[in-house]
Amino acid sequence: MNVQVTQENLSRALNNVAKVASSRNTLPILANVLIKTVGKRVCVSATNLNIAITCYVGSKVNKEGAITVPARLMQDFVQNLPGGVINLELEDTKLHISTDKHNSTINGIPADEYPVMPHIKSGTNWSINPKQLKSALNQVVAAASNDDARPILTGVNFHTSNGRLVIVATDGYRLAETKTINMKNDINLTVPATAIQDLLRVINDEDEVVVTNNDQQLIFKAGDIELTTRLIEGSYPDYKKLIPKTLATTAQIDRSEFASITKISSLFARESAGSVVLGVDDKKNQVVISSIASQFGENTATADAKVKGIGNITLNSRYINDALSSIDATEVFIGFNGKLDPVILKNSENEDYTHVIMPLKS
Amino acid sequence: MNVQVTQENLSRALNNVAKVASSRNTLPILANVLIKTVGKRVCVSATNLNIAITCYVGSKVNKEGAITVPARLMQDFVQNLPGGVINLELEDTKLHISTDKHNSTINGIPADEYPVMPHIKSGTNWSINPKQLKSALNQVVAAASNDDARPILTGVNFHTSNGRLVIVATDGYRLAETKTINMKNDINLTVPATAIQDLLRVINDEDEVVVTNNDQQLIFKAGDIELTTRLIEGSYPDYKKLIPKTLATTAQIDRSEFASITKISSLFARESAGSVVLGVDDKKNQVVISSIASQFGENTATADAKVKGIGNITLNSRYINDALSSIDATEVFIGFNGKLDPVILKNSENEDYTHVIMPLKS
Repeated sequence: MNVQVTQENLSRALNNVAKVASSRNTLPILANVLIKTVGKRVCVSATNLNIAITCYVGSKVNKEGAITVPARLMQDFVQNLPGGVINLELEDTKLHISTDKHNSTINGIPADEYPVMPHIKSGTNWSINPKQLKSALNQVVAAASNDDARPILTGVNFHTSNGRLVIVATDGYRLAETKTINMKNDINLTVPATAIQDLLRVINDEDEVVVTNNDQQLIFKAGDIELTTRLIEGSYPDYKKLIPKTLATTAQIDRSEFASITKISSLFARESAGSVVLGVDDKKNQVVISSIASQFGENTATADAKVKGIGNITLNSRYINDALSSIDATEVFIGFNGKLDPVILKNSENEDYTHVIMPLKS
Repeated sequence: MNVQVTQENLSRALNNVAKVASSRNTLPILANVLIKTVGKRVCVSATNLNIAITCYVGSKVNKEGAITVPARLMQDFVQNLPGGVINLELEDTKLHISTDKHNSTINGIPADEYPVMPHIKSGTNWSINPKQLKSALNQVVAAASNDDARPILTGVNFHTSNGRLVIVATDGYRLAETKTINMKNDINLTVPATAIQDLLRVINDEDEVVVTNNDQQLIFKAGDIELTTRLIEGSYPDYKKLIPKTLATTAQIDRSEFASITKISSLFARESAGSVVLGVDDKKNQVVISSIASQFGENTATADAKVKGIGNITLNSRYINDALSSIDATEVFIGFNGKLDPVILKNSENEDYTHVIMPLKS
């Protein structure tokens, strides 16, 4: 291999892919990035066997070739080089990297030892505007579970319902669902939330995202970036029954004020794992958040609201704030029924996004 | 106690003092801040028995009093309250804090149990411009030791020499000395570096800093802030003999380029604890930084310089970068003698600041 690339392009590519490489893996080569020539471009990729990210970089290819080098060192090194042209030259497994002021050698591992995720030969194809996709994923991804005990809940589910693409995530304690673009294909698949987080990190706002999947895998392509991920097996739980159809008590409230009083009460709720009592009263047209009295003290905070009905419910304050930060509106709607029934939070002006929180026993 | 203060003022005071309070201390009350009325002001203070910080807040005092409350909770709580007037009212050991939308109670511990650092009744007095003091302290504090084995080196030494105030710190591996204001008093005292870090955090650029000390303690006063610290006992080492008088090899080099090539070479020096070889050659008028070849690879980087003499020396790259970030100049001067003799770094245009690094054996 003998190629010339710009520092700016190579650094961007390494920043996009290197995070997937990990030195904590049992296979030492998975701490490396693969650098190889593909036609007139250099392809930089990394994988953890579940997710692979590839980024193409325009370059002058004098001689073809491929090598893997330690991801973190290569990323830090190229990031700190001054802007301008970088020469990459391979000699056996040594990658020589030079600029006019720098001469470095990084010891690599041969590229043919690098595990490659299988290509998707045929599958379902659809595409979506990157801003719309990112906005939808940002609204739901925090609700996915971290607990491997139920693998399906560690994913974000994409399915078609009434001709629209619906994206949903739940950890069993809260649920976020958003309805997005109109969709002709009939899909139902669950992507690991970690892959979604990587996707949100690497895609820009300009390049249309093209999605292809088969039964095992899915690939997002956007501009010069490709993210391949394994799908999570199993059928996604029938979450619709969790969403209440009628609501006995409802309030409309300024989102940032709601977030502020919840945050403040949560400071007093450290001993009770963040649980606070949300009270609604249509005589006062107020929402009241109270922390449970503890060793340190207690707090009650109020905010004006448009209220129907009366009631109290105990909730995890972190879940309220996660929900509020996923709703892009000045005013939010909250509604609930009995003390043990799911609570619903929505954008006051838009029906497409629904957030559900299960109450705590009080 | 019954007082009214603004959220902005109380929050600023708590942010200044609360960091000194620690829940890791054996005495539970040291996790608290002391809040008491002093004339027409509220005084907020915290101590760890070595350092005490006090901040005065203008307020409306309806009834005098004093209490201690958990520092972190009080700080987080007041910081998150909306701007405007806050009422503080004490009932036994319960501090009621209220605004129009918030009602909180924080459980306190009586103020008379709070340890107070002894007052300095008489001592030496001097004062210094806050910008000059901060600039000088920022130049030296990083060179102080973290190792309690030699307590005197964990401090920053202030002494008078040739009618000027000299501030110096060393951990035995590197040394930073800066000459500041003209000074009539004859002082020689060593302040814990941790107190200096707190001081840098709390003083602003406007208020003249007035310093008073006796044999055991020192107090910095600036505006409405007071920082009291114990002094470190013992005589400061005679460091002057470490500073080389003549230099066989010297170079003048662009500071940011020097920092950049050192940073890059250090990436390859992780296995050798950051050691790099600095080479100077007056035939090429260059400074060369090389990392020692390791499992991952190696690096050589060059920068143009005005050079006298020829030589190589092995240094800890972190110490070079610490020195460079403490020199506020576009060009720096570096000079050394034998491979085991101290290396000197200076501002090319200003003789007041001197940084010395001990080389590594190579």
